[in-house]
Amino acid sequence: MTYTIAEIAEAVGATAVGDASVTIARAAEPKDAGPDDLALAMSPKYGEALVDTKAQAAVLWQNADWQSYGLKAAILVGRPRMAMAGLTQMLDAGQGFIPGIHPSAVIDPTAILGDNVSIGPLSVIMSHARIGDGSVIGPHCMIGADAVVGQQAFLREMVSIGARVTIGDRFICQPGARIGSDGFSFVTPEVSGAENVRKTLGDQDGAKAQSYVRIHSLGSVEIGDDVEIGANCTIDNGTIRNTQIGNGTKLDNQVHLGHNVRVGHDTLLCGQTGVSGSVDIGNNVVLAGQCGVADNVFVGDGVIAGGATKIVSNVPAGRVIMGYPAVKMDTHTDIYKAQRRLPRLMRDVAALKMTVSKLDTSE
Amino acid sequence: MTYTIAEIAEAVGATAVGDASVTIARAAEPKDAGPDDLALAMSPKYGEALVDTKAQAAVLWQNADWQSYGLKAAILVGRPRMAMAGLTQMLDAGQGFIPGIHPSAVIDPTAILGDNVSIGPLSVIMSHARIGDGSVIGPHCMIGADAVVGQQAFLREMVSIGARVTIGDRFICQPGARIGSDGFSFVTPEVSGAENVRKTLGDQDGAKAQSYVRIHSLGSVEIGDDVEIGANCTIDNGTIRNTQIGNGTKLDNQVHLGHNVRVGHDTLLCGQTGVSGSVDIGNNVVLAGQCGVADNVFVGDGVIAGGATKIVSNVPAGRVIMGYPAVKMDTHTDIYKAQRRLPRLMRDVAALKMTVSKLDTSE
Amino acid sequence: MTYTIAEIAEAVGATAVGDASVTIARAAEPKDAGPDDLALAMSPKYGEALVDTKAQAAVLWQNADWQSYGLKAAILVGRPRMAMAGLTQMLDAGQGFIPGIHPSAVIDPTAILGDNVSIGPLSVIMSHARIGDGSVIGPHCMIGADAVVGQQAFLREMVSIGARVTIGDRFICQPGARIGSDGFSFVTPEVSGAENVRKTLGDQDGAKAQSYVRIHSLGSVEIGDDVEIGANCTIDNGTIRNTQIGNGTKLDNQVHLGHNVRVGHDTLLCGQTGVSGSVDIGNNVVLAGQCGVADNVFVGDGVIAGGATKIVSNVPAGRVIMGYPAVKMDTHTDIYKAQRRLPRLMRDVAALKMTVSKLDTSE
Repeated sequence: MTYTIAEIAEAVGATAVGDASVTIARAAEPKDAGPDDLALAMSPKYGEALVDTKAQAAVLWQNADWQSYGLKAAILVGRPRMAMAGLTQMLDAGQGFIPGIHPSAVIDPTAILGDNVSIGPLSVIMSHARIGDGSVIGPHCMIGADAVVGQQAFLREMVSIGARVTIGDRFICQPGARIGSDGFSFVTPEVSGAENVRKTLGDQDGAKAQSYVRIHSLGSVEIGDDVEIGANCTIDNGTIRNTQIGNGTKLDNQVHLGHNVRVGHDTLLCGQTGVSGSVDIGNNVVLAGQCGVADNVFVGDGVIAGGATKIVSNVPAGRVIMGYPAVKMDTHTDIYKAQRRLPRLMRDVAALKMTVSKLDTSE
Repeated sequence: MTYTIAEIAEAVGATAVGDASVTIARAAEPKDAGPDDLALAMSPKYGEALVDTKAQAAVLWQNADWQSYGLKAAILVGRPRMAMAGLTQMLDAGQGFIPGIHPSAVIDPTAILGDNVSIGPLSVIMSHARIGDGSVIGPHCMIGADAVVGQQAFLREMVSIGARVTIGDRFICQPGARIGSDGFSFVTPEVSGAENVRKTLGDQDGAKAQSYVRIHSLGSVEIGDDVEIGANCTIDNGTIRNTQIGNGTKLDNQVHLGHNVRVGHDTLLCGQTGVSGSVDIGNNVVLAGQCGVADNVFVGDGVIAGGATKIVSNVPAGRVIMGYPAVKMDTHTDIYKAQRRLPRLMRDVAALKMTVSKLDTSE
Repeated sequence: MTYTIAEIAEAVGATAVGDASVTIARAAEPKDAGPDDLALAMSPKYGEALVDTKAQAAVLWQNADWQSYGLKAAILVGRPRMAMAGLTQMLDAGQGFIPGIHPSAVIDPTAILGDNVSIGPLSVIMSHARIGDGSVIGPHCMIGADAVVGQQAFLREMVSIGARVTIGDRFICQPGARIGSDGFSFVTPEVSGAENVRKTLGDQDGAKAQSYVRIHSLGSVEIGDDVEIGANCTIDNGTIRNTQIGNGTKLDNQVHLGHNVRVGHDTLLCGQTGVSGSVDIGNNVVLAGQCGVADNVFVGDGVIAGGATKIVSNVPAGRVIMGYPAVKMDTHTDIYKAQRRLPRLMRDVAALKMTVSKLDTSE
């Protein structure tokens, strides 16, 4: 499959310059690009790599002197990553999943499949599950009993969706994600040491050792439209009501959401972030990689947390935070600088003590 | 399926008040509850939400004035989460797995299945595996060669259990858990930089770059009774002896246990906690989410660690810890408070130096 | 299967002493060993456990007085873990996967399988995939369209490899690993709060709330020879070029590599380590468990990072680091010691202030 520069310019919403009839087959970095490739160099810092490119066409930064690189055609873009969105959608070769219902799939007769649904080899669709028009379920997936997947979903291989989970339209799910595992909820017959520690912030208060009794999850998981879930994520069922994820929210790989968590719309949770039970995360939040959120905490709209931030108490809307435990990013920077000067500070104080002691005595 | 208030009260070990013949079909939060729902409001802080409830019956805190909410019946409980255990077990609708051996399952003829065992669609049971009476193996599971699963197990979908793993009775396993992966154990022909760093606490001591040779895992994994393993957990085989998990211990999602780890009984390991090789964790321990334990460390009975605690040295029994690296929770709180005052302390010391310098000169 | 002490000594490259014709069936720790077991006690600290052993033969440390333990034969080794490598390879009982192509596997007719390839039950091999001679694909695996797996691979169960992934020879993959998931890459139409925070280190600068547009992954994953990937790892596709892992590199369980990451050769990434997009990690690096690397960072050859180190900026070759954020291990130790003395320092400074104030006034 090939595309003209004119077609690509239209897809990314930019203007083509030069010979817009030049065709390309794929995208490449400037140094790797051959004559059939569209070289990508969207900022001046990649200009040097263009000098020796074998590409005939390139996507360049606004105002680039494209002719100086010996190109036949170019597309000039203002916001490079937005151009990447259009471009990569157009050139995505996909996973090669074969359309249609594979004969090896195990589909319960009570399941309801929409028009043009594809079910990959060896997938299991359980009783009364419903899958919307145009959705693609990859190989080795399981859609649980009474679960609902909306229209135009794309599930990669080995995704499992538990009973009664409901998911909106245009859902994308990476391999191995688990949606609708049971919540981690246990109780001891009498007050436990951990309960006392929470109250006293450190004292088990003589609580005796006990075995745990299980609290089952009666709720399920409820996911909005345009959500993407990363590879090997785990999302637990709610205890009574459903765990919820709002429209347009995206989870990176290995993210964990506990029972009863609510995540708002258009929020990003980056790789290996873990969210404990009953946490409430707002809209347009960004938690960078390996963040953690303690149970029952509220994270307001528009909060941004740096990598590995551990959130142990409520965070008001709009705040930018970092650290373990989380503080404002400014404060974290101050603390961090001060820490590095701590050994010197120790020496200064020791010297001061000697001087002052001498002064105090001499007085 | 419906239940009378009398039946539920008996299941949770509490007393019904009002018309105990009222029937309910499911549980709900007070604001979501309809006439067929049992409203759950087990502490006075949920009382307000009850005022407008459409529910006819509720589970309430001890001494609640249940009639003031217009209810026909109520169940009054002293320890709410214990009541939740009984209640949710009774009302759990399950995953809709169909009983019996699904014809698409691949079962080795030498495998031994107990009475009333269910094997889900597309599961694989390998040679000489044994599964105890009443156990349910979900869809897409694998039970490895010579592995043993006890009675009354419940495995969700896509669980894999390696060769020679042995598991006790009433085992619960969430989707995608991996039990019996090989340990991560490699060695360089000569002493490596990492080995020198361990000895010197920071110096590679000129060790040369080398390739790794693999140490295979000859041991397997040994799991007691009443254990639950979370979604996408990974539990490695032991090198010579087995990795071990004691009775009644529960692992949350994405927990990782390295080779040779021993975990005692009735211990909780919360989400994304990672335990390195040859760690020994006692009984009745609680490690909160995202904790880490360095290899060869001992964690005594009854230890409680706050979220994201990184344990790098032995912890005596009963201690309550937090931080990176782990310290007593009290100490952590003191350090944390002091850190936040550090920038001010820096300014105070700078001012003191000036004053003292002036005094010292003037003297 | 049994082995003579002579055979084992040859496999581990050491000398047998005593009756080298004694046969053993397996290895065991001294206290667990019976007459058919080879007791392993490779350092004097395990000598005491040997006193009561029922084993007839043992692997012992160099210069051990083997006859004093009543053994018939012994193998004396200089570098115990290297001996373990040879020994465990020899005694590994494997997973009991049945050789050959299982009839339940779904293999596309365009896939190309080498000589002596085994495909486990219910595995899926997609169009134009190629698998090299002698490779073993376990149960429930998926090899994607146009993917290439080299010779002598060993894949445990439920591994998935996406389209166009290429892997060298002697690949070992633990259960549930995901290779070739899509990168986590999204963009807002206009500049976002997170972009402003990166620039200002803390200020969202009034950016408005927006929804995300997806950047697709056009690249795939490229893995060298002799690589091992742990259970439930996730490795994302590159955006334009491939994500890359060099020869001899080993990933422990639940490691995450983002899009465009390059990892050199002979590097170890331990359990639950997370690497953000476009990170460049050198050769012979060791990142201990739960490390994190921020996006676009460079980690030089031979770097060693302690457990839970969070790397947020470039690290020069050979450095030994620790902490959040990462600093030299020496510095980390100094900061940590100073932190623990902080509360006392606070009190000292308060006392100094009083004394100085008194002196200053009295003057």
